[in-house]
Amino acid sequence: MIPEQLRGDFELRWNRLQAALRENDMDACLLTDSVNIYYTTGKVYNGYFYLPAEGEPCFFVKRPTGYEGERVRYIRKPEEMADQLLAMGYAKPGRLMLEADELSYNDYLRLRAVFDPVAEGNASRMLRWARREKTPLEIELFRRSAKIHAEVYKEVPACFRKGMTDVEFQAEIELRMRRHGSIGLFRAYGSNMDIFMGSVLAGENAEAPSPFDFALGGAGVDASCPIGANGTVLRDGMAILVDMAGNYTPYITDMSRVFAVGKLPDEAYRAHEVALRVQEAVVAMARPGAACADLYAEALRVVNEAGLGTNFMGTKWQAKFVGHGIGLQINELPVLTPRSKETLLPNMVFALEPKFVLPGVGAVGVENSFLVTSDGVEKLTVFPEEIIQLK
Amino acid sequence: MIPEQLRGDFELRWNRLQAALRENDMDACLLTDSVNIYYTTGKVYNGYFYLPAEGEPCFFVKRPTGYEGERVRYIRKPEEMADQLLAMGYAKPGRLMLEADELSYNDYLRLRAVFDPVAEGNASRMLRWARREKTPLEIELFRRSAKIHAEVYKEVPACFRKGMTDVEFQAEIELRMRRHGSIGLFRAYGSNMDIFMGSVLAGENAEAPSPFDFALGGAGVDASCPIGANGTVLRDGMAILVDMAGNYTPYITDMSRVFAVGKLPDEAYRAHEVALRVQEAVVAMARPGAACADLYAEALRVVNEAGLGTNFMGTKWQAKFVGHGIGLQINELPVLTPRSKETLLPNMVFALEPKFVLPGVGAVGVENSFLVTSDGVEKLTVFPEEIIQLK
Repeated sequence: MIPEQLRGDFELRWNRLQAALRENDMDACLLTDSVNIYYTTGKVYNGYFYLPAEGEPCFFVKRPTGYEGERVRYIRKPEEMADQLLAMGYAKPGRLMLEADELSYNDYLRLRAVFDPVAEGNASRMLRWARREKTPLEIELFRRSAKIHAEVYKEVPACFRKGMTDVEFQAEIELRMRRHGSIGLFRAYGSNMDIFMGSVLAGENAEAPSPFDFALGGAGVDASCPIGANGTVLRDGMAILVDMAGNYTPYITDMSRVFAVGKLPDEAYRAHEVALRVQEAVVAMARPGAACADLYAEALRVVNEAGLGTNFMGTKWQAKFVGHGIGLQINELPVLTPRSKETLLPNMVFALEPKFVLPGVGAVGVENSFLVTSDGVEKLTVFPEEIIQLK
Repeated sequence: MIPEQLRGDFELRWNRLQAALRENDMDACLLTDSVNIYYTTGKVYNGYFYLPAEGEPCFFVKRPTGYEGERVRYIRKPEEMADQLLAMGYAKPGRLMLEADELSYNDYLRLRAVFDPVAEGNASRMLRWARREKTPLEIELFRRSAKIHAEVYKEVPACFRKGMTDVEFQAEIELRMRRHGSIGLFRAYGSNMDIFMGSVLAGENAEAPSPFDFALGGAGVDASCPIGANGTVLRDGMAILVDMAGNYTPYITDMSRVFAVGKLPDEAYRAHEVALRVQEAVVAMARPGAACADLYAEALRVVNEAGLGTNFMGTKWQAKFVGHGIGLQINELPVLTPRSKETLLPNMVFALEPKFVLPGVGAVGVENSFLVTSDGVEKLTVFPEEIIQLK
């Protein structure tokens, strides 16, 4: 099931999950969400991944046909798993973790009935926790995404033509993303967190609040998808924040840059400089052991010192975070928020995105993806950070 | 909350749901899934829609700010709904329907605890049932999507250049879709049903089975998204099935057409003709009261008569349906499948997609979106149906 040369990397993941199972006094976990299946197997299949606290995992596959391996079992219904496990010599899991934040209520009940455990745990939470610290293969894929992300942003100025709308501009960027290998799908954690390929925010639309937990909003092109570009005609004096997905591998980098049509008001360049100072200040503190809440507080300190508190991360609605973990989904752990109890750990990867919304102008600021190293952070998304003039 | 001129259309939807509540002996339903919120309010907001079996609905909103209306209530937590309802004069719902197939297990438990009902019902199932019969506004939006869908397909030949891959071809089509107002998001019902903008299948890739319930598969560009185009270089003798989303309004039309690079083997043209005959035969039977299982049987009869049973709807994996309802999601009710117990009703909208996979050549066939009228069906996606030669 796992190619031999990748097996070590997946064993790291399984071992981490098994340690968590034992720590939670659980016998096993059963996963079926696409993202968790991909994390634990390197594939997306229709079926289940079963991991006992000790020993080898099992791969229960409904579709597609064609997988081979020692502990690969084809099933038609989840109910078949109980007997199959016993036949393979596994004990019945008395204490079982299921994806309580990802499975639908009915799917959860059905899976639970298969094993009828005496105790249950939340596998969704454990997986989010385990997925925080990236493995060597994951980090390699992030590096690949980040490199292409920067290549595509080089082409952003070529996407601009006078008189076009934000949506037309974004569509041209999307074409270049796809030409550079964008997978297209842009996965987020949580129900209703729908977003398409990223966000381009221009002018007043930057103030429109998002209903969901995105950093900034935008009204979107339709009430059925209220996020991002809304058909604003790009005109002189507008800041355009380009925050398109780095979905060039399954590991999504996050990077925003600001583009200017004509000359922006001076306040925009000043606020942008403050955002760069926020980045600098947070990066200077960021290392293993740094508390995420302290990183947020440091960002806010620089923001308030500059008197930009009412513009920080929105106006009508202000997001209460300045950064977030990234990975197979755009909103992983940790979150750089005032109430976070998390500290940075080596091999975490997170986006830092100090942004200001200036009414009538748009959004300015910067976003980069960082890898936590042994003694600091490494910027993965290397690309000029000043406001880029469009012609 | 609902603009005055649209109120009648939403009342139709509410009345249908209320009739279903009473029929199921339920007091109320509480919805929070984006698609169901959009269906019942015409917006996507973060919050809840509460509909009692008798009387007026309530709109509980967490975000965004700015909504006004008589029964709009802002809340921070779902727990606040119980008191708010009592304060508005509603009775406590003893028998409550929640979205058991869409809410996560944990979200379901939390919402249930808010009301502590004596009996529960599945609002997901009721909404899928109610959403089958489209309202006048929904049909108008379908017509709009279908018209643009056809406009974009006119531009497909211009997307082709010799030597390009299926992914490059698809990206050019996506650009034109976006220029014509594609919303981007392509919603499907069910967990893990991830797809990006549609599918382009060429050559051998048409045989790759999908892990999920899509009509055809395709390996996809990455193991994390195993559906559709996979980087196949388009070359002479290949059939290219273009099945890109009609997501120009929230109501998605479904339409596939076949494009040929060079000359295809004769069997491809023959199989394509059979697909058109299947469509003709099913359309001749399709009217209110027609059983979906009979429509499938009729399709299979024509297929088997032509000796193409082993190529129908795939080879390595064969989808057991020839059509499906469409709407806010690409896979609504009814399904044209052998085991369906459903019959067509006026104002249902469904896609009919007889397709054949020919090893080494690709997929041929046709897909159109149909509206069920009082005495038959009306084709919404009007566009030439023969195999279109690419140059």
